[in-house]
Amino acid sequence: MLESLNESKKLLPERVAEQIISLIADRELKAGDKLPNEFDMAQQLSVGRGTIREAVKILVSRNILEIRRGCGTFVCEKPGVVDDPLGFAFVKDKKRLGLDLCEVRMIIEPEIAALAAERATSEEIEELQRIEDEVKELCDKEEPHMHKDIEFHEMLAKMSKNMIMPNIIPVIQTGISLFINITDYSLTKETVRTHQMIVDAIRERCPQAAKDAMIEHLASNQDKIERLSGL
Amino acid sequence: MLESLNESKKLLPERVAEQIISLIADRELKAGDKLPNEFDMAQQLSVGRGTIREAVKILVSRNILEIRRGCGTFVCEKPGVVDDPLGFAFVKDKKRLGLDLCEVRMIIEPEIAALAAERATSEEIEELQRIEDEVKELCDKEEPHMHKDIEFHEMLAKMSKNMIMPNIIPVIQTGISLFINITDYSLTKETVRTHQMIVDAIRERCPQAAKDAMIEHLASNQDKIERLSGL
Repeated sequence: MLESLNESKKLLPERVAEQIISLIADRELKAGDKLPNEFDMAQQLSVGRGTIREAVKILVSRNILEIRRGCGTFVCEKPGVVDDPLGFAFVKDKKRLGLDLCEVRMIIEPEIAALAAERATSEEIEELQRIEDEVKELCDKEEPHMHKDIEFHEMLAKMSKNMIMPNIIPVIQTGISLFINITDYSLTKETVRTHQMIVDAIRERCPQAAKDAMIEHLASNQDKIERLSGL
Repeated sequence: MLESLNESKKLLPERVAEQIISLIADRELKAGDKLPNEFDMAQQLSVGRGTIREAVKILVSRNILEIRRGCGTFVCEKPGVVDDPLGFAFVKDKKRLGLDLCEVRMIIEPEIAALAAERATSEEIEELQRIEDEVKELCDKEEPHMHKDIEFHEMLAKMSKNMIMPNIIPVIQTGISLFINITDYSLTKETVRTHQMIVDAIRERCPQAAKDAMIEHLASNQDKIERLSGL
């Protein structure tokens, strides 16, 4: 529970922000849940409402809380998962960053596909197929499919049943899409073909085939990124 | 360069914070570099000094800037890399979190060891040996060695020459040490033996042996964590 605050080296709003994080964890508040009002929190923590307001601002900027005007303060959708958590915006050599992100994907995503083949439910596999059908439809119409492509890989991360993967994968994929201008169209047939291989291998519960299909899928992407970045 | 701000849906301080991030990138400011003063930034962005102050607070809470009283505002050591960037503090099932973190390590770290065997410089390999000698010394004296152990794995991440790895590894290792109470002593001989196998394989430039040694090292850790968490 909340404790009254003692003196410390950290600034008071920072400390109060940490207490609010504890409050969220203790009360098992989930995404979308509402926080107690400013007045109640100020009383419980024996600090002024101005300090509570400062602490809330800190947590808003860390994607933990959001303020809905006229409604109150709520827990964010993915609390604490910030945009660009690894500071990619501060890397100077974006080309190398892009290639290094590809290397990380090549290490992690084949294992995700293998885990998904072992652990996914039948419902999840059909959901994955539905997402892939939409990717294919967009590709056939030559429309941008990047957002659906990311959804496909995020769904796989979820199907791995490892709770870290759905947090890591969007970070890496966003990093790549932010810094490398990948033409959406030149590889669409290859994307659709290898995505479908991944889905089929998972449906057949064959981890090795799922892993190999993912390697083939990523290799074609990596080739393209290397070409585009002139290496 | 800095542009004057137009209206937008984001709150003004949030937008100004993004402009300050661009300023850091454009001017290639590094960790420890000083920012222009409040007055100059306010002029360049055509906003009030109060807004600049709000924006700086946002960036302080995101570990991008730090204020040194009486000196000015400086770029942080690892700008933008926040504590707990993946929101582990919000995960309820800490036991599962710990095991999932181990699974992620088992996927990433053997590949890091293999890359290090291919890419590290001789100086880096000797640095790794020095760190391991210190781990061994602490283990021999039965003193806490966790911090040196983390340093060993961070050094390997650096030696992989993939710029993402040194950002990912501390996040995962901190996650494990935060949520699982690992006794420092029960595995020390095993730690020292397998660490040394990793160093030797890298020195012999043998990626497969480095990878295998890392798998053996992590497997013994994982066993212990599974025992400690009663699975």
